[in-house]
Amino acid sequence: MSRGERMHALVQRLYPLCRSITGDGVRDTLAIVGEHLDLTVHEVPTGTQVLDWTVPQEWNIRDAYIARGGERVVDFQELNLHVVGYSVPVDRVMPLEELRGHLHTLPDQPSLVPYRTSYYAPTWGFCLSQDTLLSMPDGDYEVRIDSTLADGSLTYAEHVVRGQVDDEVLISCHVCHPALANDNMAGVAVAVELARSLENPYYTYRFIFAPGTIGAITWLARNDVDKVKHGLVLACAGDRGSLTYKQSRRGNAEIDRVIAHVLRDRPHEIREFSPYGYDERQYCSPGFNLGVGSLTRTPYAGYPDYHTSGDNPDLVAPESLVDTLEACQEAVAILDRNRTYVNLSPYGEPQLGRRGLYSSLGGRSDAHEAQMAMLWVLNMSDGTNDLLAVADKAKLPFTAVAAAADALHAAGLLKD
Amino acid sequence: MSRGERMHALVQRLYPLCRSITGDGVRDTLAIVGEHLDLTVHEVPTGTQVLDWTVPQEWNIRDAYIARGGERVVDFQELNLHVVGYSVPVDRVMPLEELRGHLHTLPDQPSLVPYRTSYYAPTWGFCLSQDTLLSMPDGDYEVRIDSTLADGSLTYAEHVVRGQVDDEVLISCHVCHPALANDNMAGVAVAVELARSLENPYYTYRFIFAPGTIGAITWLARNDVDKVKHGLVLACAGDRGSLTYKQSRRGNAEIDRVIAHVLRDRPHEIREFSPYGYDERQYCSPGFNLGVGSLTRTPYAGYPDYHTSGDNPDLVAPESLVDTLEACQEAVAILDRNRTYVNLSPYGEPQLGRRGLYSSLGGRSDAHEAQMAMLWVLNMSDGTNDLLAVADKAKLPFTAVAAAADALHAAGLLKD
Amino acid sequence: MSRGERMHALVQRLYPLCRSITGDGVRDTLAIVGEHLDLTVHEVPTGTQVLDWTVPQEWNIRDAYIARGGERVVDFQELNLHVVGYSVPVDRVMPLEELRGHLHTLPDQPSLVPYRTSYYAPTWGFCLSQDTLLSMPDGDYEVRIDSTLADGSLTYAEHVVRGQVDDEVLISCHVCHPALANDNMAGVAVAVELARSLENPYYTYRFIFAPGTIGAITWLARNDVDKVKHGLVLACAGDRGSLTYKQSRRGNAEIDRVIAHVLRDRPHEIREFSPYGYDERQYCSPGFNLGVGSLTRTPYAGYPDYHTSGDNPDLVAPESLVDTLEACQEAVAILDRNRTYVNLSPYGEPQLGRRGLYSSLGGRSDAHEAQMAMLWVLNMSDGTNDLLAVADKAKLPFTAVAAAADALHAAGLLKD
Repeated sequence: MSRGERMHALVQRLYPLCRSITGDGVRDTLAIVGEHLDLTVHEVPTGTQVLDWTVPQEWNIRDAYIARGGERVVDFQELNLHVVGYSVPVDRVMPLEELRGHLHTLPDQPSLVPYRTSYYAPTWGFCLSQDTLLSMPDGDYEVRIDSTLADGSLTYAEHVVRGQVDDEVLISCHVCHPALANDNMAGVAVAVELARSLENPYYTYRFIFAPGTIGAITWLARNDVDKVKHGLVLACAGDRGSLTYKQSRRGNAEIDRVIAHVLRDRPHEIREFSPYGYDERQYCSPGFNLGVGSLTRTPYAGYPDYHTSGDNPDLVAPESLVDTLEACQEAVAILDRNRTYVNLSPYGEPQLGRRGLYSSLGGRSDAHEAQMAMLWVLNMSDGTNDLLAVADKAKLPFTAVAAAADALHAAGLLKD
Repeated sequence: MSRGERMHALVQRLYPLCRSITGDGVRDTLAIVGEHLDLTVHEVPTGTQVLDWTVPQEWNIRDAYIARGGERVVDFQELNLHVVGYSVPVDRVMPLEELRGHLHTLPDQPSLVPYRTSYYAPTWGFCLSQDTLLSMPDGDYEVRIDSTLADGSLTYAEHVVRGQVDDEVLISCHVCHPALANDNMAGVAVAVELARSLENPYYTYRFIFAPGTIGAITWLARNDVDKVKHGLVLACAGDRGSLTYKQSRRGNAEIDRVIAHVLRDRPHEIREFSPYGYDERQYCSPGFNLGVGSLTRTPYAGYPDYHTSGDNPDLVAPESLVDTLEACQEAVAILDRNRTYVNLSPYGEPQLGRRGLYSSLGGRSDAHEAQMAMLWVLNMSDGTNDLLAVADKAKLPFTAVAAAADALHAAGLLKD
Repeated sequence: MSRGERMHALVQRLYPLCRSITGDGVRDTLAIVGEHLDLTVHEVPTGTQVLDWTVPQEWNIRDAYIARGGERVVDFQELNLHVVGYSVPVDRVMPLEELRGHLHTLPDQPSLVPYRTSYYAPTWGFCLSQDTLLSMPDGDYEVRIDSTLADGSLTYAEHVVRGQVDDEVLISCHVCHPALANDNMAGVAVAVELARSLENPYYTYRFIFAPGTIGAITWLARNDVDKVKHGLVLACAGDRGSLTYKQSRRGNAEIDRVIAHVLRDRPHEIREFSPYGYDERQYCSPGFNLGVGSLTRTPYAGYPDYHTSGDNPDLVAPESLVDTLEACQEAVAILDRNRTYVNLSPYGEPQLGRRGLYSSLGGRSDAHEAQMAMLWVLNMSDGTNDLLAVADKAKLPFTAVAAAADALHAAGLLKD
């Protein structure tokens, strides 16, 4: 199975689980991820204070439906989006009139079921297509949600790939959305594959699989973020759109420059930070202000099927997953190799030919990429420019610039 | 009478007075303005040293004409532009040949009478249309200017609206132009209406009605400018062109950002500072370098009728006066409300839902303007960004951002 | 003879000499230049350590050819490009097969002879047109290069025009290319004419005629660069293309701003620094980081005949040489006159009329360039802006701004 097929298969397997910000859906999801990666799973008890928030009660659901004459018209077993997330239990017969106040549809997309939650205000509700609603005659309906909302815990997991230094790169994915494929089982699948591909990296890479908002806040509350040097929030990683990068709040963090370099030769869009979207909202809150950007394909709320039953595994393409993965891998390669050097022979050019680093035949007006890369590294390495800045200024591939730095360092012409 | 009609009526009433940089024309103008606003009128004696300048002698004029056979060909009583401002007295008969050296016309605009002055070099002259000049046969003319140039004083006035703080906003209008309507009785009319509309402002607003150049210099020489935090020179405020803002010399003063925000959704032009134009030349001289910009409609010297008899009350439109006034009022509202806050819960987002500030229904991918404004205020309030910076970055109306700040401040999430 | 004809004649006279990075070709070139300028000629012995480099052995050549049956097929006497620069001696008969490894052609430009060197790897070779190569039948050829490579010295020359201050402006030309006209006898000719035109300049102007790379490095190794405030590398100064300026590594050095101003009203291109090209590579190495840019017409390697036999005197146009010269002269005039002043009357505008510096007739809405220049100089002279910054901001000619500064200084309104 190719990488693309493997990632897509994982999306398909994870898709039907009924995740929320707590509960067994998250645990089941992490158990499957744990088949691929060594995970440390954390359970944080209901009531724990996390920054400005409190870990809520745990929600679990077994069944839910709206039925008429025993026949299910809206059935949780068929699609878990049908229940508003965190719905309190209900078991009643009520006329459609009364039921309407608990029903959510998308009149402009009449065949789609919306995704709705109510984590922090106790209520219940159903999501259904407008088409279904219109087909429901007046009269009484059996309405049942077999859920529990009780003290328990919030669950999240970490996978760490130890690097040569303790400084960390965070890769964070939200795992709280129920039957939505691109958002965000696609992000999870790419993160899993990325984690498996890392071998003896320079940085320590920490993968976080946590429910959105409260999960990221919980992680931030329980950890020392000083060692986090860079990070990416991965979401909507598999649709057929081109890559979109949303910059960190800093706008000029190293990760912002790295991703811009990676995307330079791909169709892409780069957006400035805004305080709406995924968990970059938390990582980039002004107190933390981490160098964490967000990589997606079509961005947050950017496609018609977003947060609807249309976001199913068909929306996710194996080749898109691979493209996202490769962009991440290129970013990792640059982050891990990026250094700032100082030219030890900064007065005039050093004689590269004597060291076997320069073509001996003169007069040719072109220069090989390797030679240009060496000249650029020497000229810019005054302690203020990292290799990525050299590559960007020189309009050369980072790999060529890094190879030049290796050669010059080996020749004793550069120091770290 | 609507605001527009009221302002236009004031322009029409002030228009025919023969103003100059000193003299009774200015006093009469200020007396009329004083019917609407409490004015403090200052008389600064001839010979007073003001910065690098000296207050000149006072000029007054009762009559002037060029006549032929007793019939007035050019008559000051008909249009006061006909006399070069500050003309010394003359009472002679002279042939057209000799008279020509004292006549000013606009050959390219043959029906218009130009506006000319000679404040600091004693001479005399008449302005007339090229058409009139061409109709004048050779021969002798009776030439009379019944003026006096004598020790007296320079007159200017101030109206102050006390605010909650002593820090001041200057609104400055030149009142030295004779029968020119847009330049600058329109500016005076807008300033009067603006002053009357201010109620318990945050800043103290100081309106200055003074002759151009020497008046601003006199004001600057006699006052402590340290309390002047922002300012606007108001001129050409009533023609039918769109608004033009000329930045302060600083280019990024708060007033520059405020006016840019106000003009954002209006047709407009923003120009960089240049040391030519109105009294921003003085307020923005390098020693003072105040945050004072200039708001006009069509800018200085930008319309064909500029500084000619064509600049009469017909050139001024009530709706243009209202538009300028409203821009000023919006600017005042922003200046007065603009603050820099610090988010007291900067680690992660604070839980807005718990405080009744956030919709409890999740999953919707849109967010109300009010919620976006709160998220932006929280994210950017790290002590370096004022609310205006938030509004500009977030592309939200300042009012929405200010309302968000109010709500967050009331919830204890922000401090000044 | 006009300046253009004089410069072109010098190009033609210098063109046929067989220059290299050392040897009599350079000495003969400098002897001819010395007929026009007082030159100090430096001889730096083989083996001298210069920065990271060592002065190489001296190369001289008397004759070279490839012959068949006594008839020269490739003849150094006809075109000195035919021999690879620094070729070691050879005197052999060999079959074409063996000879081929020593032959250089340009298959895409079959009628042109390329320019090739091998300064630092001992070898020998011939350059010829692809057409000639194709006409050579198989068989044996007499191959002879009558050259010597022996201890000697590297030769370069300086011409200094003493100025009012010891601070220096460098004008540097490479003199190591054999029969190539635009590259760089055109640069030499412009430098000679520029040097002759300087009269009592403000800065001290130092003209350097030195072989490329090793010559500049030798100069840098033997001199104190602290007094070098500005500089230009002059090359490719006579082709029919428009002017190109390559910025110094700093990008905002005064010379960069000066040349941008000079080129403002000419067709031109401005390029950012890159560490490839001429001796700006050495002057702008990070240890020196001098304010030295490079002025050419068509830039380095930018025309099809570049580094081929097509770069002959026909490629150089007298009017192009004059245009380059005039740009240099304008740059010198600005550099020499550029100052930062402080307005001694910075509070409000000083009364220019009283000092005879301002038109006494008011009301006109236009202002003469001279008056605008004075207002701009006064407004911007707060000790941070030089006259060039004023000219650029005001969009006025530097000469007008300098004249304004002279008038204001004479009136006691400015200090240095």
